[in-house]
Amino acid sequence: METNDVKNILGLQLPTDPRWVDLASISLEDILTDHAYCEQKAATSCISLIQRYSEKEKLVRELSPIVTEEWGHFRLVLAELDKRNLKLGRQRRDMYVNELMKFEKKGGNPDERFLDKLLIFALIEARSCERFKRLSEGLEDPYLRKFYRRFMESEAGHYHLFIELSETYLDKAMVRTRWQEWLTYEAEIIQHLEVRGDRMH
Amino acid sequence: METNDVKNILGLQLPTDPRWVDLASISLEDILTDHAYCEQKAATSCISLIQRYSEKEKLVRELSPIVTEEWGHFRLVLAELDKRNLKLGRQRRDMYVNELMKFEKKGGNPDERFLDKLLIFALIEARSCERFKRLSEGLEDPYLRKFYRRFMESEAGHYHLFIELSETYLDKAMVRTRWQEWLTYEAEIIQHLEVRGDRMH
Repeated sequence: METNDVKNILGLQLPTDPRWVDLASISLEDILTDHAYCEQKAATSCISLIQRYSEKEKLVRELSPIVTEEWGHFRLVLAELDKRNLKLGRQRRDMYVNELMKFEKKGGNPDERFLDKLLIFALIEARSCERFKRLSEGLEDPYLRKFYRRFMESEAGHYHLFIELSETYLDKAMVRTRWQEWLTYEAEIIQHLEVRGDRMH
Repeated sequence: METNDVKNILGLQLPTDPRWVDLASISLEDILTDHAYCEQKAATSCISLIQRYSEKEKLVRELSPIVTEEWGHFRLVLAELDKRNLKLGRQRRDMYVNELMKFEKKGGNPDERFLDKLLIFALIEARSCERFKRLSEGLEDPYLRKFYRRFMESEAGHYHLFIELSETYLDKAMVRTRWQEWLTYEAEIIQHLEVRGDRMH
């Protein structure tokens, strides 16, 4: 992943506001806590996907190790908080994910519902990847830059996996069309969401 | 753990009906599927406990690796199903856990609610340990006996951890009294629940 692709990372239509990384750098406890819960939610949601689509063998086989990885990330972030004598604290409302959910198809065609579930994962992984890239390039501390780079690489891999799973189970043209709709919708959310240094998104 | 302590394993008041292991041995696909979902539920519930009691540092620190372990068990059972060309299948209603939940204190004193959450875990781990012991001793196949022995040992460790966490955060006499109430209640459930070879409990 090159450094000059921030604007268009993994297809995202709007780069993160440059002020975000500066705000995040002065609220490390908050950003670590929010990050820990992002990993927790990723693990929990992946488990739900496995439960709900247990008949899809490839999905179950490929997502099972992702749960282990996401939970391993939770533990890494927790260790980082511990090391710095910072507290995990309570989970906060996730405005970004709440806004994304509003676009999810809840009824109707089961294929469309399934596709939306996969694409929401792909989107959150893509945006998280972009945010980790920002942190890995914009923070002063070389240790933290490296720390976040590792997450950036992992999220990019997960993004690709969710797109690949979509294309395994569903028509590729349908995936492409809906993915573009999601990208457009996500850019609107990013544009209207308050820029806060205590949130990953 | 000695072989002659089946009757009173980890304080349980009623041993499993001896017919259970014979029934389970002829429904391996069902029992593996049910076991996989038991591990999944254990992982998910442990994550919920961490979220809910995130201010309790020892609890968070000690339960985080347990989530990794439970999910690792899910993956082990999944691999066992795959190896035998068996299907994971859908999650089934868990009558045992549903019945246990009815005894849980839902309102009132937060300490009592917290204690019940920990003791339900301890109880499910204890009963699972006893069931794995049955399988590890009663099945014909030496490979499966060894396979289940590993889970038995792990569940025994988890049982001890949940009791220890209870005694860390709460008055020991209160823990002992409530634990006895839970053991009595659980024995009644076991007595009245249909003996089914397609369920872990």
